[in-house]
Amino acid sequence: MESAVSFEKLIEQFKAMPGIGAKTAMRLAFHVLSLTKEEAYEFSDVIKEAADKIHRCPECANLTDEELCPVCKNPARKHSVICVVENVESLMAIENTNEYKGVYHVLHGVISPLDDVSPEDLTVKELLTRVGEGGVQEVIMATGSSVEGELTAMYISKLLKPLGVNVTRLAYGLPVGSDLQYADSVTLMRAIEGRRSL
Amino acid sequence: MESAVSFEKLIEQFKAMPGIGAKTAMRLAFHVLSLTKEEAYEFSDVIKEAADKIHRCPECANLTDEELCPVCKNPARKHSVICVVENVESLMAIENTNEYKGVYHVLHGVISPLDDVSPEDLTVKELLTRVGEGGVQEVIMATGSSVEGELTAMYISKLLKPLGVNVTRLAYGLPVGSDLQYADSVTLMRAIEGRRSL
Repeated sequence: MESAVSFEKLIEQFKAMPGIGAKTAMRLAFHVLSLTKEEAYEFSDVIKEAADKIHRCPECANLTDEELCPVCKNPARKHSVICVVENVESLMAIENTNEYKGVYHVLHGVISPLDDVSPEDLTVKELLTRVGEGGVQEVIMATGSSVEGELTAMYISKLLKPLGVNVTRLAYGLPVGSDLQYADSVTLMRAIEGRRSL
Repeated sequence: MESAVSFEKLIEQFKAMPGIGAKTAMRLAFHVLSLTKEEAYEFSDVIKEAADKIHRCPECANLTDEELCPVCKNPARKHSVICVVENVESLMAIENTNEYKGVYHVLHGVISPLDDVSPEDLTVKELLTRVGEGGVQEVIMATGSSVEGELTAMYISKLLKPLGVNVTRLAYGLPVGSDLQYADSVTLMRAIEGRRSL
């Protein structure tokens, strides 16, 4: 199909996005063309603005467009408790519970020998420096329960323990509201292991 | 969750897109943040460029960034046969067959009283003017086989016939490669009605 060059370029941009195939890319490109010129310019500017302003928080590596991220600069948060997460998505998921009052440390990945991701590619060194500066009582390892997530949690906790800090891990068990019969056996085993007295 | 304003704005832009929910919007926004500054600027510029350059072809209402669309300006195409389609997506689907050698007319919608779309909202007037100028032998109504697509095809063909042009409609029948047993009864009925001698 011979079609407009700028249109093809637009489709290519969307196609490069995760989980977006050829058909969806075309649908999104058509959406952009259906915008008024003002709306399209706004979309364009928002992307540029995000690229210009958003950077990693120097404290916790969360994404922010201010000097410190909203969590780190909030004096009401407990700066003595650090929750270590894989990525900003995980951080947001925990924030959405509205329960956690400590601060974070975003690794921006997990250790994965298969994908050639080593601790140097993550913000592990920054975490150690941060804990080494003192004032931290607890580090919660909140990486996922995948093999890589486990490996990363184990690796970091080994480095942290000599610093005299309390390292904890998220609890494993049944998801709330789930049926026992549908739980996989590993989860069920972990739920039994981690049982608590009532 | 308190998060960066520019990031929220980016998510909002993606959320406004068709078929993009909150989670996907966030994933796409993270993708944009994972781009280098140069890549993000390019994405931003591509959107602006598309908004600036792409317009409707004055001949057939296809989208183009040149004076005429690639189909209309191609002298090798049969300008005496016009295929009337609902939208540019349909045009592209037909182009992808590499079989059709005529030109197009894009309606940019179908008549739909329920959605308050009347013929005046489409490029029906432009089609009539185009056919009225002469030189057109056949108009193929290639709107979809939905109720609205049918209605639009009927409506336009009634207006075209007095102009002495041959109006045809796409064939209905079984999709190629499909099993008879899974065809819906309306399609099957149409396939029987439209049977051809071998």
